Amino acid sequence: MKKITLGIIGGGRIGKLHAENLVRLPEIEIKTISDLFAEQVKEWANHIGIQHVTNDYKEVLQDPEIDAVFVCSPTDTHIQIIIEAAKAGKHIFCEKPISFNVSESLNAIEVVKETGVKLQVGFNRRFDHNFKKVRETVASGKIGDPHIIKVTSRDPHPPHEEYIKGSGGLFIDMAIHDFDIARFVSGSDVEEVYVQGAVLVDPVFAAYGDIDTAITTLRFTNGAIGVIDNSRKAAYGYDQRVEVFGSKGSVTIKNDQPTTAEISTEEGVYQDKPKHFFLERYQEAYIEEVKIFVDCVLNGKDVPVNSNDGLQAELIAHAAKKSLEEKRPVKISEIVGNIKINV
Amino acid sequence: MKKITLGIIGGGRIGKLHAENLVRLPEIEIKTISDLFAEQVKEWANHIGIQHVTNDYKEVLQDPEIDAVFVCSPTDTHIQIIIEAAKAGKHIFCEKPISFNVSESLNAIEVVKETGVKLQVGFNRRFDHNFKKVRETVASGKIGDPHIIKVTSRDPHPPHEEYIKGSGGLFIDMAIHDFDIARFVSGSDVEEVYVQGAVLVDPVFAAYGDIDTAITTLRFTNGAIGVIDNSRKAAYGYDQRVEVFGSKGSVTIKNDQPTTAEISTEEGVYQDKPKHFFLERYQEAYIEEVKIFVDCVLNGKDVPVNSNDGLQAELIAHAAKKSLEEKRPVKISEIVGNIKINV
Amino acid sequence: MKKITLGIIGGGRIGKLHAENLVRLPEIEIKTISDLFAEQVKEWANHIGIQHVTNDYKEVLQDPEIDAVFVCSPTDTHIQIIIEAAKAGKHIFCEKPISFNVSESLNAIEVVKETGVKLQVGFNRRFDHNFKKVRETVASGKIGDPHIIKVTSRDPHPPHEEYIKGSGGLFIDMAIHDFDIARFVSGSDVEEVYVQGAVLVDPVFAAYGDIDTAITTLRFTNGAIGVIDNSRKAAYGYDQRVEVFGSKGSVTIKNDQPTTAEISTEEGVYQDKPKHFFLERYQEAYIEEVKIFVDCVLNGKDVPVNSNDGLQAELIAHAAKKSLEEKRPVKISEIVGNIKINV
Amino acid sequence: MKKITLGIIGGGRIGKLHAENLVRLPEIEIKTISDLFAEQVKEWANHIGIQHVTNDYKEVLQDPEIDAVFVCSPTDTHIQIIIEAAKAGKHIFCEKPISFNVSESLNAIEVVKETGVKLQVGFNRRFDHNFKKVRETVASGKIGDPHIIKVTSRDPHPPHEEYIKGSGGLFIDMAIHDFDIARFVSGSDVEEVYVQGAVLVDPVFAAYGDIDTAITTLRFTNGAIGVIDNSRKAAYGYDQRVEVFGSKGSVTIKNDQPTTAEISTEEGVYQDKPKHFFLERYQEAYIEEVKIFVDCVLNGKDVPVNSNDGLQAELIAHAAKKSLEEKRPVKISEIVGNIKINV
Repeated sequence: MKKITLGIIGGGRIGKLHAENLVRLPEIEIKTISDLFAEQVKEWANHIGIQHVTNDYKEVLQDPEIDAVFVCSPTDTHIQIIIEAAKAGKHIFCEKPISFNVSESLNAIEVVKETGVKLQVGFNRRFDHNFKKVRETVASGKIGDPHIIKVTSRDPHPPHEEYIKGSGGLFIDMAIHDFDIARFVSGSDVEEVYVQGAVLVDPVFAAYGDIDTAITTLRFTNGAIGVIDNSRKAAYGYDQRVEVFGSKGSVTIKNDQPTTAEISTEEGVYQDKPKHFFLERYQEAYIEEVKIFVDCVLNGKDVPVNSNDGLQAELIAHAAKKSLEEKRPVKISEIVGNIKINV
Repeated sequence: MKKITLGIIGGGRIGKLHAENLVRLPEIEIKTISDLFAEQVKEWANHIGIQHVTNDYKEVLQDPEIDAVFVCSPTDTHIQIIIEAAKAGKHIFCEKPISFNVSESLNAIEVVKETGVKLQVGFNRRFDHNFKKVRETVASGKIGDPHIIKVTSRDPHPPHEEYIKGSGGLFIDMAIHDFDIARFVSGSDVEEVYVQGAVLVDPVFAAYGDIDTAITTLRFTNGAIGVIDNSRKAAYGYDQRVEVFGSKGSVTIKNDQPTTAEISTEEGVYQDKPKHFFLERYQEAYIEEVKIFVDCVLNGKDVPVNSNDGLQAELIAHAAKKSLEEKRPVKISEIVGNIKINV
Repeated sequence: MKKITLGIIGGGRIGKLHAENLVRLPEIEIKTISDLFAEQVKEWANHIGIQHVTNDYKEVLQDPEIDAVFVCSPTDTHIQIIIEAAKAGKHIFCEKPISFNVSESLNAIEVVKETGVKLQVGFNRRFDHNFKKVRETVASGKIGDPHIIKVTSRDPHPPHEEYIKGSGGLFIDMAIHDFDIARFVSGSDVEEVYVQGAVLVDPVFAAYGDIDTAITTLRFTNGAIGVIDNSRKAAYGYDQRVEVFGSKGSVTIKNDQPTTAEISTEEGVYQDKPKHFFLERYQEAYIEEVKIFVDCVLNGKDVPVNSNDGLQAELIAHAAKKSLEEKRPVKISEIVGNIKINV
Repeated sequence: MKKITLGIIGGGRIGKLHAENLVRLPEIEIKTISDLFAEQVKEWANHIGIQHVTNDYKEVLQDPEIDAVFVCSPTDTHIQIIIEAAKAGKHIFCEKPISFNVSESLNAIEVVKETGVKLQVGFNRRFDHNFKKVRETVASGKIGDPHIIKVTSRDPHPPHEEYIKGSGGLFIDMAIHDFDIARFVSGSDVEEVYVQGAVLVDPVFAAYGDIDTAITTLRFTNGAIGVIDNSRKAAYGYDQRVEVFGSKGSVTIKNDQPTTAEISTEEGVYQDKPKHFFLERYQEAYIEEVKIFVDCVLNGKDVPVNSNDGLQAELIAHAAKKSLEEKRPVKISEIVGNIKINV
């Protein structure tokens, strides 16, 4: 069997998640994991069978045996690592967002392009059973041309204050997944964004110039229009729904629930709340996305979520932020200015 | 416009219900209502525009202006009234059951047949939107040949003790509707019955030789098999569901709910309980059944629920009772013995 | 029994609908109906028991026996009729919108106020079982403070070209109901509007300067934000859903369906489409709204949908139109300018 | 970490399934797999990391390093293997049914008891998220005392003729799972059974003295009554539903679907069919049951599905068969006669 050797950069929550999903695949071996706090990661790493733990990511990049790396370190380190990894000829799986800064992202993407390595961005929802079904239904033509795209995306609870501080804000941190899903299900790029935002969940967001509630209107290049509503806190749990309405019908997805049980009593008819949060809801999708990345690297296929997908979602996030600040609709073209997007 | 003149015999709950639905129809006039306690009915009758109230049902039957009568008196008076009404040439809408006794029912049906009047039995559920849809789906062939018929029928609360005493028991009083529905949706007669019954809701049922919970297995003449489950008390309300499973698929109906609202909180996702009881659930069906009866009388059409339908449901009820008593499957042919059913 | 005498002005579709619902109420009498084409209305009117038909609405207004009038004539006649009716001391039930022009509406409302007659605006959806349940749930505090209000409102098919021409456009003709519902369920006024609109259903809309698809973002005075999506054509039928998301949970309503049947075959699991259009969907709500109006007039109660409700929905519609034209968020205060709203 | 060493006896579909789920557990090692056709199994075994493959199950039982065995061979070999395994001191996970013959099962269970090894029976559905939730709801008292238990269990397609021939019939092969579930969710044994069966799917069943459609009525020792409906072919897929109705309410579970998508078009509103068959539907339950068995062996816990559970389900199956043959209700006590059940 053909095999590939992987390195993981960043042993936080998401790095661990990917590692645990990857070690189950017979066609890969994780040789090394790097983390600034290597000592804290060691026991876990050994337990799942990763022998080598380092606090220097360059060790991963310089190892000639390693074919591909997972970039799971903090966002502000992505650009440097991507560029070095690409120059070292490693294929790259990078968590979202590529960076907080469009020109830096463009720069890194340019290097990726020149070196010819693969780069897959971690938009895991594209691999979820429900979202895939929406895309397939739209692509099949069953509901005709898309007219209206609606995305609901609400977290069960806000992140802690430390996280908010460095998150880059609701759009680049949270809604970026929804921007990607909007492009994915519609099969179209976005050309204009308008945001109506608010701080309704917790004033701490205002303290960092952030918001916790937003309605974002989108205009797509294919003529469709769309809307995303976000909240940092849904009392009933993780709310992840999509609707595409087209000339011949619509497709909607509801939340996944832990069970299909319905309990009827004098008080009413009850069902389970949605699956708690992203780890439960997207468990299978996380497995699927790394399987496909491994397959692309092994068999020279194009990755399903490429640099351009990563970039486009970032552009929408930046336009959304600008719209919020300037209280007006903002065109994507206002963000990229004269920079040539070459991906 | 052609018009018909009606009389109502029995001003109890169901007599009032029919009267109130009938007075809305421009093509009828209710001339007289009779009730043993005429004084108690008078104010209500006048309020809805019925001028003539009597305590003697014979007045209704002897009135040459009256074309048809609604028999809404207690079950033990049905036979006599049906026979007299038929002989007086009145068309008859009779509440279920025709009687508590098969040979009496057969006798009355014979008279109805001889006199040529129409007799419609009050199996209102056949006119309900959901049950009709099940019948239409089966009849369309969409789900192929029926293999399994399942009926759930549970009341929100038991009747009071006085009622239980004279009800004739769970099968002839309550499940008779379900026996009719089983025949209706399957398009087939029943040939054998087996009952597993219990007193689980209230010991008062046992005191009157009755049960409050039952599972009744049916074998149909077309080869299908079926099951009905009954309870005199569902804490969450009136439960009225049906499923027909066939060679090409199935059709199921759920309960009607007052609203489609879904409320999601920390505790779970909840919906309304089913519509409370038969008055709420079958409001439209009650209107529909009398409209159709009026149309049949006015335009000489065959009634949709005839003497035979009334009789067959009774036969199943008697077989069910015998099965419960003798703890064995009972054939419908055991009930009718050598009596010739001539309808 | 206390009774009131009514006149109907306008015997088109909605005038007939109201008349047919009203004649069932024992506490009213419809004395007269006026329509420019009285001859075309006569047969229908007599059939349901209205004896007097005229082509001059002034006859209705000058009749001292008439207590209240239903204004069901074309929108451009509303103002004149309202003013004359109010001056004649008649209570008024007026179809939406009051007028196409804010200052005219304000003018008429002023006269209504001075004369002290009641004016109820025909926002029938407030009386629908589902929408009422949403309002009750929000008002009960069960879902906490409203954060996000979402309304989906799509017609099963576009109106014919003649209608489009004189409709006043998507906002004042169709979405006005949704603007009212947004105020109703949130319990708050709207202060800012932004529209992203498109012509995706039929180019005929563009020919009249209209659109057929819109996403309208709302900012409420209580801090909540909201979004309405409209389409003039949903292939699967009339789509009328609402969601209110709050600090403690959410409440959503789905469409009503003709039956609860679920058919499972090799091809999938099928349910009915939603009830076809507003006549089917809001049948009960239309009955309820006129019952309540009659009760308010008879018993001197405040009407549940008053002049201010009519006005506020119009203001939102005008702001939406301005937003579409000027491609920017528009404040409600920009519409009313210095005009004092005195209701 | 404590570890246990396993052997698998039988490398057919279910043996492979268990092996593939087991190899993912860090706390086990599968040392040997035995299959009569060892050559056909070898490649697959090596691929998943099992080095040793033999055609003689005795090699597994005689290996002192092996702690526990999975008995996945044909049913008619179970008794001999269980007895030998127990005598060799191996813990046993045995696929259902233990055997086709009650006295043989009793005999084997006696040996298991004497030797003190653990025996878990492969009733996988008890570990399914939905069925577990039903059991938990009943056990919590939320729905009060169970009155009616309903189980629907239909396969998407019949097995091939070879399988039917040796299956032991619908009750011992297929419905045995439902008998176990009825005991599991009700928390009660069964004391009487009545069957109404039919051949409606395919006459091939009649050729082997078998049926393909059945309605089985149950009386439980706790007073509740129940019904199971089975079909060998549901056109729309695997149908696995349960309802428990009690004095305070009910709990029902629906089928799992591959996605939550709802597609609305002119033709109607449709959803996915249920997950195809048991491999898809119970994927997680199969993993869960072996995890728990391993945990019980490692940590000396009682197995959650023991010999008695295996036996009781068999007794119900035999009573059901007798009821079908003799067309009468059959008591469980008629099956075990004077044999002393010592488990």
